[in-house]
Amino acid sequence: MPNPTAAMLVIGDEILSGRTRDSNMHHLAGQLTQKGIDLREVRVVADERSDIIDAVQALSGRYDHVFTSGGIGPTHDDITADCIAAAFEASIDVREDARAILAAHYERAGTELNTARLRMARIPAGAALIDNPVSAAPGFTLKNVHVMAGVPSVFQAMVESVLPGLTGGAALISKTMRIDRGEGDIAGPLGALAVAFPDLSMGSYPFQKDGVYGAHVVIRGTDAAQVDAAMAQLDAAFS
Amino acid sequence: MPNPTAAMLVIGDEILSGRTRDSNMHHLAGQLTQKGIDLREVRVVADERSDIIDAVQALSGRYDHVFTSGGIGPTHDDITADCIAAAFEASIDVREDARAILAAHYERAGTELNTARLRMARIPAGAALIDNPVSAAPGFTLKNVHVMAGVPSVFQAMVESVLPGLTGGAALISKTMRIDRGEGDIAGPLGALAVAFPDLSMGSYPFQKDGVYGAHVVIRGTDAAQVDAAMAQLDAAFS
Repeated sequence: MPNPTAAMLVIGDEILSGRTRDSNMHHLAGQLTQKGIDLREVRVVADERSDIIDAVQALSGRYDHVFTSGGIGPTHDDITADCIAAAFEASIDVREDARAILAAHYERAGTELNTARLRMARIPAGAALIDNPVSAAPGFTLKNVHVMAGVPSVFQAMVESVLPGLTGGAALISKTMRIDRGEGDIAGPLGALAVAFPDLSMGSYPFQKDGVYGAHVVIRGTDAAQVDAAMAQLDAAFS
Repeated sequence: MPNPTAAMLVIGDEILSGRTRDSNMHHLAGQLTQKGIDLREVRVVADERSDIIDAVQALSGRYDHVFTSGGIGPTHDDITADCIAAAFEASIDVREDARAILAAHYERAGTELNTARLRMARIPAGAALIDNPVSAAPGFTLKNVHVMAGVPSVFQAMVESVLPGLTGGAALISKTMRIDRGEGDIAGPLGALAVAFPDLSMGSYPFQKDGVYGAHVVIRGTDAAQVDAAMAQLDAAFS
Protein backbone atom coordinates (compact mmCIF):
# COMPACT_ATOMS: atom_id res chain seq x y z
CA MET A 1 0.00 0.00 0.00
CA PRO A 2 1.46 3.38 -0.89
CA ASN A 3 2.20 5.81 1.94
CA PRO A 4 -0.28 8.57 2.78
CA THR A 5 0.51 11.88 1.08
CA ALA A 6 0.71 15.37 2.51
CA ALA A 7 1.22 19.01 1.63
CA MET A 8 2.22 21.95 3.79
CA LEU A 9 0.89 25.49 3.54
CA VAL A 10 3.05 28.19 5.12
CA ILE A 11 1.06 31.39 5.68
CA GLY A 12 2.76 34.73 6.26
CA ASP A 13 3.96 37.93 4.62
CA GLU A 14 7.11 37.84 6.74
CA ILE A 15 8.45 34.76 4.93
CA LEU A 16 7.80 36.21 1.47
CA SER A 17 9.36 39.58 2.31
CA GLY A 18 12.54 37.89 3.50
CA ARG A 19 12.14 39.22 7.05
CA THR A 20 11.81 35.76 8.58
CA ARG A 21 13.52 32.54 7.57
CA ASP A 22 11.01 29.72 7.73
CA SER A 23 12.14 26.72 9.74
CA ASN A 24 8.84 24.87 10.13
CA MET A 25 9.00 23.31 6.66
CA HIS A 26 12.27 21.57 7.40
CA HIS A 27 11.00 20.35 10.78
CA LEU A 28 7.74 18.99 9.39
CA ALA A 29 9.51 17.34 6.43
CA GLY A 30 11.74 15.36 8.78
CA GLN A 31 8.87 14.35 11.08
CA LEU A 32 6.65 13.18 8.20
CA THR A 33 9.47 11.17 6.62
CA GLN A 34 9.96 9.33 9.93
CA LYS A 35 6.23 8.71 10.17
CA GLY A 36 5.98 7.31 6.63
CA ILE A 37 3.84 10.14 5.28
CA ASP A 38 5.10 11.49 1.95
CA LEU A 39 5.36 15.28 1.86
CA ARG A 40 4.71 16.01 -1.81
CA GLU A 41 4.35 19.78 -1.99
CA VAL A 42 4.81 22.95 0.03
CA ARG A 43 3.27 26.32 -0.71
CA VAL A 44 4.01 29.65 0.91
CA VAL A 45 1.36 32.36 0.56
CA ALA A 46 0.84 35.84 2.01
CA ASP A 47 -1.77 36.87 4.60
CA GLU A 48 -4.33 37.32 1.81
CA ARG A 49 -7.77 35.79 2.21
CA SER A 50 -8.29 34.58 -1.36
CA ASP A 51 -4.75 33.19 -1.66
CA ILE A 52 -5.15 31.16 1.53
CA ILE A 53 -8.60 29.84 0.59
CA ASP A 54 -7.49 28.86 -2.93
CA ALA A 55 -4.41 27.04 -1.65
CA VAL A 56 -6.31 25.16 1.07
CA GLN A 57 -8.95 23.98 -1.39
CA ALA A 58 -6.38 22.90 -3.99
CA LEU A 59 -4.14 21.06 -1.54
CA SER A 60 -6.84 19.41 0.58
CA GLY A 61 -8.40 17.96 -2.54
CA ARG A 62 -5.14 16.55 -3.83
CA TYR A 63 -3.41 15.10 -0.75
CA ASP A 64 -4.39 12.98 2.25
CA HIS A 65 -3.27 15.63 4.74
CA VAL A 66 -2.55 19.36 4.71
CA PHE A 67 -0.51 20.97 7.48
CA THR A 68 -0.64 24.76 7.80
CA SER A 69 1.58 27.08 9.83
CA GLY A 70 0.99 30.70 10.75
CA GLY A 71 -1.78 33.23 11.12
CA ILE A 72 -3.66 31.96 14.20
CA GLY A 73 -2.60 34.61 16.75
CA PRO A 74 -4.61 37.52 18.20
CA THR A 75 -3.72 40.33 15.77
CA HIS A 76 -5.62 41.70 12.77
CA ASP A 77 -3.34 39.91 10.27
CA ASP A 78 -4.17 36.50 11.80
CA ILE A 79 -6.87 35.37 9.38
CA THR A 80 -6.09 31.68 8.91
CA ALA A 81 -8.95 30.22 10.99
CA ASP A 82 -11.56 32.30 9.15
CA CYS A 83 -10.05 31.32 5.79
CA ILE A 84 -10.11 27.60 6.62
CA ALA A 85 -13.75 27.89 7.64
CA ALA A 86 -14.54 29.70 4.39
CA ALA A 87 -12.64 27.10 2.33
CA PHE A 88 -14.94 24.38 3.68
CA GLU A 89 -18.07 26.56 4.03
CA ALA A 90 -18.09 25.91 7.78
CA SER A 91 -19.39 28.47 10.26
CA ILE A 92 -16.89 29.98 12.71
CA ASP A 93 -17.24 31.66 16.08
CA VAL A 94 -15.68 31.69 19.54
CA ARG A 95 -16.07 28.11 20.70
CA GLU A 96 -16.69 27.29 24.36
CA ASP A 97 -14.06 24.53 24.64
CA ALA A 98 -11.35 26.77 23.21
CA ARG A 99 -12.50 29.75 25.29
CA ALA A 100 -12.25 27.64 28.46
CA ILE A 101 -8.65 26.68 27.64
CA LEU A 102 -7.69 30.32 27.12
CA ALA A 103 -9.58 31.50 30.22
CA ALA A 104 -7.78 28.98 32.45
CA HIS A 105 -4.40 29.85 30.92
CA TYR A 106 -4.75 33.61 31.29
CA GLU A 107 -6.20 33.32 34.77
CA ARG A 108 -3.12 31.39 35.88
CA ALA A 109 -0.95 34.06 34.24
CA GLY A 110 -2.96 36.93 35.76
CA THR A 111 -3.56 38.33 32.28
CA GLU A 112 -6.85 39.68 30.95
CA LEU A 113 -8.64 37.53 28.36
CA ASN A 114 -9.48 40.57 26.22
CA THR A 115 -11.24 40.75 22.84
CA ALA A 116 -8.01 40.27 20.89
CA ARG A 117 -7.01 37.15 22.81
CA LEU A 118 -10.53 35.80 22.50
CA ARG A 119 -10.04 35.76 18.71
CA MET A 120 -7.76 32.75 19.29
CA ALA A 121 -10.85 30.80 20.44
CA ARG A 122 -12.51 31.26 17.04
CA ILE A 123 -12.72 27.68 15.79
CA PRO A 124 -14.69 26.42 12.76
CA ALA A 125 -17.68 24.21 13.50
CA GLY A 126 -16.79 20.54 13.30
CA ALA A 127 -13.08 21.00 13.96
CA ALA A 128 -11.12 19.04 16.58
CA LEU A 129 -8.73 21.07 18.76
CA ILE A 130 -4.97 20.52 18.63
CA ASP A 131 -3.28 20.70 22.01
CA ASN A 132 -0.76 23.53 22.54
CA PRO A 133 1.32 22.77 25.65
CA VAL A 134 3.54 25.83 25.02
CA SER A 135 1.14 28.78 25.00
CA ALA A 136 -2.35 27.24 25.37
CA ALA A 137 -4.11 28.77 22.32
CA PRO A 138 -5.11 25.64 20.39
CA GLY A 139 -4.70 24.71 16.76
CA PHE A 140 -7.40 22.63 15.10
CA THR A 141 -8.06 19.93 12.53
CA LEU A 142 -10.94 20.45 10.09
CA LYS A 143 -11.47 17.64 7.56
CA ASN A 144 -7.93 16.74 6.45
CA VAL A 145 -6.37 20.13 7.29
CA HIS A 146 -4.27 20.54 10.43
CA VAL A 147 -4.00 24.21 11.39
CA MET A 148 -0.99 25.14 13.51
CA ALA A 149 0.91 28.18 14.76
CA GLY A 150 3.86 29.80 13.00
CA VAL A 151 6.09 30.34 16.05
CA PRO A 152 8.52 27.41 15.74
CA SER A 153 8.35 26.19 19.34
CA VAL A 154 4.55 26.15 19.22
CA PHE A 155 4.46 24.63 15.72
CA GLN A 156 6.72 21.80 16.84
CA ALA A 157 4.62 21.12 19.94
CA MET A 158 1.46 21.00 17.82
CA VAL A 159 3.06 18.63 15.32
CA GLU A 160 3.86 16.39 18.27
CA SER A 161 0.19 16.59 19.34
CA VAL A 162 -1.14 15.71 15.87
CA LEU A 163 1.15 13.06 14.42
CA PRO A 164 0.47 10.19 16.86
CA GLY A 165 -3.21 10.27 15.79
CA LEU A 166 -2.44 9.86 12.09
CA THR A 167 -1.90 6.61 10.22
CA GLY A 168 1.61 6.43 8.84
CA GLY A 169 3.16 4.18 6.25
CA ALA A 170 6.49 2.53 5.77
CA ALA A 171 9.27 4.77 7.02
CA LEU A 172 11.65 5.80 4.29
CA ILE A 173 15.13 4.32 4.62
CA SER A 174 17.75 6.73 3.40
CA LYS A 175 21.46 6.01 2.95
CA THR A 176 24.08 8.49 1.84
CA MET A 177 27.51 7.99 0.27
CA ARG A 178 29.98 10.82 -0.22
CA ILE A 179 31.83 10.50 -3.52
CA ASP A 180 34.77 12.80 -4.18
CA ARG A 181 34.30 13.04 -7.94
CA GLY A 182 32.65 15.65 -10.08
CA GLU A 183 28.92 15.06 -10.49
CA GLY A 184 29.52 14.63 -14.23
CA ASP A 185 31.54 11.50 -13.48
CA ILE A 186 28.94 10.16 -11.05
CA ALA A 187 25.99 10.72 -13.37
CA GLY A 188 26.54 7.76 -15.74
CA PRO A 189 26.83 4.92 -13.19
CA LEU A 190 24.15 6.49 -10.99
CA GLY A 191 21.71 6.76 -13.89
CA ALA A 192 22.27 3.07 -14.71
CA LEU A 193 21.67 2.18 -11.05
CA ALA A 194 18.40 4.17 -11.02
CA VAL A 195 17.20 2.13 -14.02
CA ALA A 196 18.20 -1.14 -12.30
CA PHE A 197 16.32 -0.24 -9.10
CA PRO A 198 13.10 1.43 -10.25
CA ASP A 199 11.50 1.27 -6.76
CA LEU A 200 14.26 3.35 -5.19
CA SER A 201 14.73 7.09 -5.41
CA MET A 202 18.30 8.26 -6.02
CA GLY A 203 19.55 11.80 -5.73
CA SER A 204 22.91 13.47 -6.15
CA TYR A 205 23.69 16.63 -4.17
CA PRO A 206 26.91 18.26 -5.33
CA PHE A 207 29.29 20.18 -3.10
CA GLN A 208 32.55 22.01 -3.55
CA LYS A 209 34.72 22.25 -0.48
CA ASP A 210 38.36 23.27 -0.17
CA GLY A 211 38.79 22.86 -3.91
CA VAL A 212 37.37 19.33 -3.93
CA TYR A 213 34.35 18.64 -6.13
CA GLY A 214 32.09 15.88 -4.93
CA ALA A 215 28.53 14.86 -4.28
CA HIS A 216 26.48 13.18 -1.63
CA VAL A 217 24.54 10.43 -3.33
CA VAL A 218 21.37 9.53 -1.45
CA ILE A 219 19.43 6.33 -2.07
CA ARG A 220 15.95 6.13 -0.56
CA GLY A 221 13.30 3.47 -0.39
CA THR A 222 11.09 1.50 1.94
CA ASP A 223 12.78 -1.88 1.30
CA ALA A 224 16.00 -2.06 3.34
CA ALA A 225 17.43 -5.00 1.38
CA GLN A 226 17.03 -3.15 -1.92
CA VAL A 227 18.60 0.00 -0.52
CA ASP A 228 21.57 -2.00 0.76
CA ALA A 229 22.00 -3.82 -2.56
CA ALA A 230 21.99 -0.56 -4.50
CA MET A 231 24.47 1.04 -2.08
CA ALA A 232 26.79 -1.96 -2.54
CA GLN A 233 26.70 -1.56 -6.32
CA LEU A 234 27.32 2.18 -5.99
CA ASP A 235 30.29 1.50 -3.75
CA ALA A 236 31.68 -1.03 -6.22
CA ALA A 237 31.34 1.46 -9.10
CA PHE A 238 33.41 4.14 -7.36
CA SER A 239 36.07 2.25 -5.44
CA MET B 1 1.98 51.74 -10.62
CA PRO B 2 1.94 48.54 -8.58
CA ASN B 3 5.18 46.61 -8.26
CA PRO B 4 5.86 43.63 -10.55
CA THR B 5 4.91 40.30 -8.98
CA ALA B 6 6.86 37.08 -8.71
CA ALA B 7 6.68 33.48 -7.57
CA MET B 8 9.42 31.00 -6.76
CA LEU B 9 9.42 27.30 -7.55
CA VAL B 10 11.84 25.16 -5.54
CA ILE B 11 12.41 21.78 -7.20
CA GLY B 12 13.85 18.85 -5.30
CA ASP B 13 13.03 15.69 -3.37
CA GLU B 14 15.75 16.51 -0.87
CA ILE B 15 13.84 19.52 0.50
CA LEU B 16 10.58 17.59 0.87
CA SER B 17 12.24 14.63 2.58
CA GLY B 18 13.84 16.91 5.14
CA ARG B 19 17.37 15.94 4.09
CA THR B 20 18.27 19.47 2.98
CA ARG B 21 17.18 22.76 4.48
CA ASP B 22 16.35 25.18 1.68
CA SER B 23 18.09 28.54 1.93
CA ASN B 24 17.44 29.89 -1.56
CA MET B 25 13.90 31.04 -0.76
CA HIS B 26 15.07 33.33 2.01
CA HIS B 27 17.85 34.73 -0.17
CA LEU B 28 15.59 35.42 -3.15
CA ALA B 29 12.88 36.94 -0.93
CA GLY B 30 15.34 39.50 0.42
CA GLN B 31 16.76 40.34 -3.01
CA LEU B 32 13.33 40.81 -4.60
CA THR B 33 12.12 43.03 -1.75
CA GLN B 34 15.14 45.30 -2.29
CA LYS B 35 14.44 45.38 -6.01
CA GLY B 36 10.78 46.28 -5.59
CA ILE B 37 9.43 43.01 -6.98
CA ASP B 38 6.70 41.47 -4.80
CA LEU B 39 7.25 37.79 -4.07
CA ARG B 40 3.68 36.53 -3.72
CA GLU B 41 4.00 32.76 -3.60
CA VAL B 42 6.53 29.96 -3.25
CA ARG B 43 5.98 26.34 -4.16
CA VAL B 44 8.21 23.37 -3.42
CA VAL B 45 7.70 20.28 -5.58
CA ALA B 46 9.50 16.95 -6.01
CA ASP B 47 11.58 15.87 -9.02
CA GLU B 48 8.40 14.70 -10.77
CA ARG B 49 7.79 15.73 -14.36
CA SER B 50 4.06 16.41 -14.15
CA ASP B 51 4.33 18.27 -10.83
CA ILE B 52 7.01 20.60 -12.23
CA ILE B 53 5.15 21.26 -15.48
CA ASP B 54 1.84 21.96 -13.69
CA ALA B 55 3.48 24.36 -11.24
CA VAL B 56 5.41 26.25 -13.96
CA GLN B 57 2.28 26.72 -16.04
CA ALA B 58 0.17 27.85 -13.09
CA LEU B 59 2.75 30.29 -11.72
CA SER B 60 3.96 31.75 -15.04
CA GLY B 61 0.36 32.56 -15.97
CA ARG B 62 -0.36 34.27 -12.68
CA TYR B 63 2.77 36.32 -11.94
CA ASP B 64 5.13 38.62 -13.85
CA HIS B 65 8.16 36.48 -13.04
CA VAL B 66 8.86 32.93 -11.89
CA PHE B 67 12.22 31.98 -10.40
CA THR B 68 13.08 28.29 -10.15
CA SER B 69 15.87 26.59 -8.22
CA GLY B 70 17.19 23.07 -8.59
CA GLY B 71 17.31 20.22 -11.05
CA ILE B 72 19.67 21.55 -13.72
CA GLY B 73 22.75 19.42 -13.01
CA PRO B 74 24.14 16.42 -14.94
CA THR B 75 22.42 13.51 -13.16
CA HIS B 76 19.31 11.53 -14.10
CA ASP B 77 17.16 13.33 -11.53
CA ASP B 78 17.93 16.72 -13.10
CA ILE B 79 14.83 17.14 -15.25
CA THR B 80 13.99 20.82 -14.83
CA ALA B 81 15.15 22.07 -18.26
CA ASP B 82 13.11 19.41 -20.08
CA CYS B 83 10.05 20.19 -17.95
CA ILE B 84 10.28 23.94 -18.65
CA ALA B 85 10.51 23.22 -22.37
CA ALA B 86 7.47 20.94 -22.11
CA ALA B 87 5.52 23.53 -20.12
CA PHE B 88 5.90 26.02 -22.99
CA GLU B 89 5.87 23.45 -25.81
CA ALA B 90 9.38 24.52 -26.81
CA SER B 91 11.87 22.11 -28.36
CA ILE B 92 15.00 21.31 -26.36
CA ASP B 93 18.44 20.00 -27.31
CA VAL B 94 22.12 20.62 -26.63
CA ARG B 95 22.61 24.21 -27.71
CA GLU B 96 25.87 25.37 -29.27
CA ASP B 97 26.32 28.52 -27.14
CA ALA B 98 25.86 26.54 -23.92
CA ARG B 99 28.07 23.69 -25.18
CA ALA B 100 30.85 26.18 -25.94
CA ILE B 101 30.71 27.58 -22.40
CA LEU B 102 30.98 24.07 -20.90
CA ALA B 103 33.73 23.01 -23.33
CA ALA B 104 35.90 26.01 -22.42
CA HIS B 105 35.30 25.49 -18.70
CA TYR B 106 36.14 21.79 -18.66
CA GLU B 107 39.13 22.26 -20.95
CA ARG B 108 40.58 24.75 -18.46
CA ALA B 109 39.89 22.27 -15.66
CA GLY B 110 41.34 19.33 -17.61
CA THR B 111 38.06 17.44 -17.21
CA GLU B 112 36.27 15.47 -19.89
CA LEU B 113 33.05 16.99 -21.27
CA ASN B 114 31.25 13.64 -21.22
CA THR B 115 27.64 12.80 -22.07
CA ALA B 116 26.41 13.51 -18.54
CA ARG B 117 28.02 16.97 -18.40
CA LEU B 118 26.73 17.73 -21.89
CA ARG B 119 23.19 17.39 -20.51
CA MET B 120 23.79 20.74 -18.81
CA ALA B 121 23.92 22.32 -22.29
CA ARG B 122 20.34 21.23 -23.01
CA ILE B 123 18.54 24.57 -23.33
CA PRO B 124 15.01 25.16 -24.66
CA ALA B 125 14.72 26.94 -28.01
CA GLY B 126 14.17 30.66 -27.55
CA ALA B 127 15.70 30.84 -24.07
CA ALA B 128 18.37 33.37 -23.03
CA LEU B 129 21.29 32.00 -21.01
CA ILE B 130 21.92 33.09 -17.42
CA ASP B 131 25.58 33.56 -16.57
CA ASN B 132 27.07 31.25 -13.94
CA PRO B 133 30.41 32.66 -12.77
CA VAL B 134 30.76 29.93 -10.12
CA SER B 135 30.66 26.67 -12.07
CA ALA B 136 30.02 27.70 -15.70
CA ALA B 137 26.92 25.57 -16.51
CA PRO B 138 24.36 28.25 -17.36
CA GLY B 139 20.81 28.80 -16.23
CA PHE B 140 18.30 30.23 -18.66
CA THR B 141 15.27 32.48 -19.00
CA LEU B 142 12.35 31.24 -21.12
CA LYS B 143 9.38 33.62 -21.37
CA ASN B 144 8.95 34.90 -17.80
CA VAL B 145 10.62 31.91 -16.11
CA HIS B 146 14.17 32.19 -14.78
CA VAL B 147 15.72 28.75 -14.30
CA MET B 148 18.57 28.54 -11.82
CA ALA B 149 20.66 26.00 -9.92
CA GLY B 150 19.86 24.64 -6.46
CA VAL B 151 23.36 24.82 -4.98
CA PRO B 152 23.14 28.02 -2.91
CA SER B 153 26.41 29.63 -4.09
CA VAL B 154 25.44 29.06 -7.72
CA PHE B 155 21.83 30.12 -7.15
CA GLN B 156 22.97 33.39 -5.58
CA ALA B 157 25.39 34.11 -8.42
CA MET B 158 22.64 33.50 -10.97
CA VAL B 159 20.21 35.78 -9.12
CA GLU B 160 22.90 38.44 -9.33
CA SER B 161 23.15 37.82 -13.08
CA VAL B 162 19.38 38.05 -13.64
CA LEU B 163 18.09 40.84 -11.40
CA PRO B 164 19.85 43.84 -13.00
CA GLY B 165 18.04 43.08 -16.27
CA LEU B 166 14.56 43.16 -14.69
CA THR B 167 12.40 46.22 -14.12
CA GLY B 168 11.80 46.73 -10.41
CA GLY B 169 9.30 48.87 -8.57
CA ALA B 170 9.32 50.93 -5.43
CA ALA B 171 11.48 49.31 -2.79
CA LEU B 172 9.55 48.33 0.29
CA ILE B 173 10.41 50.34 3.38
CA SER B 174 10.18 48.22 6.50
CA LYS B 175 10.48 49.44 10.08
CA THR B 176 10.34 47.27 13.18
CA MET B 177 9.52 48.08 16.80
CA ARG B 178 10.02 45.64 19.64
CA ILE B 179 7.22 45.85 22.18
CA ASP B 180 7.59 43.94 25.43
CA ARG B 181 3.90 43.20 25.91
CA GLY B 182 1.85 40.12 25.15
CA GLU B 183 0.54 40.09 21.59
CA GLY B 184 -2.99 40.16 23.00
CA ASP B 185 -2.29 43.65 24.41
CA ILE B 186 -0.73 44.84 21.17
CA ALA B 187 -3.54 43.58 18.93
CA GLY B 188 -6.15 46.29 19.67
CA PRO B 189 -4.05 49.41 19.01
CA LEU B 190 -2.29 47.71 16.08
CA GLY B 191 -5.59 46.76 14.46
CA ALA B 192 -6.81 50.35 14.74
CA LEU B 193 -3.56 51.58 13.19
CA ALA B 194 -3.95 49.14 10.28
CA VAL B 195 -7.40 50.59 9.60
CA ALA B 196 -6.04 54.16 9.76
CA PHE B 197 -3.23 53.37 7.28
CA PRO B 198 -4.80 51.10 4.65
CA ASP B 199 -1.82 51.43 2.26
CA LEU B 200 0.62 49.98 4.79
CA SER B 201 1.08 46.37 5.76
CA MET B 202 1.46 45.69 9.48
CA GLY B 203 2.55 42.44 11.03
CA SER B 204 3.14 41.26 14.57
CA TYR B 205 5.70 38.52 15.22
CA PRO B 206 5.56 37.27 18.79
CA PHE B 207 8.51 36.00 20.77
CA GLN B 208 9.08 34.64 24.22
CA LYS B 209 12.55 35.09 25.61
CA ASP B 210 13.83 34.65 29.16
CA GLY B 211 10.25 34.68 30.44
CA VAL B 212 9.38 37.95 28.67
CA TYR B 213 6.49 37.90 26.20
CA GLY B 214 6.72 40.42 23.40
CA ALA B 215 6.41 40.97 19.70
CA HIS B 216 8.26 42.62 16.88
CA VAL B 217 5.78 44.81 15.10
CA VAL B 218 6.73 45.44 11.48
CA ILE B 219 5.22 48.22 9.38
CA ARG B 220 5.89 48.08 5.65
CA GLY B 221 5.04 50.30 2.72
CA THR B 222 6.50 52.18 -0.21
CA ASP B 223 5.75 55.68 1.19
CA ALA B 224 8.40 56.58 3.77
CA ALA B 225 6.39 59.45 5.27
CA GLN B 226 3.40 57.18 5.91
CA VAL B 227 5.58 54.48 7.45
CA ASP B 228 7.16 57.07 9.77
CA ALA B 229 3.78 58.51 10.74
CA ALA B 230 2.42 55.08 11.60
CA MET B 231 5.54 54.18 13.60
CA ALA B 232 5.17 57.42 15.59
CA GLN B 233 1.56 56.56 16.47
CA LEU B 234 2.58 53.03 17.43
CA ASP B 235 5.31 54.41 19.66
CA ALA B 236 2.84 56.82 21.31
CA ALA B 237 0.38 53.98 21.96
CA PHE B 238 2.92 51.89 23.85
CA SER B 239 5.06 54.36 25.74
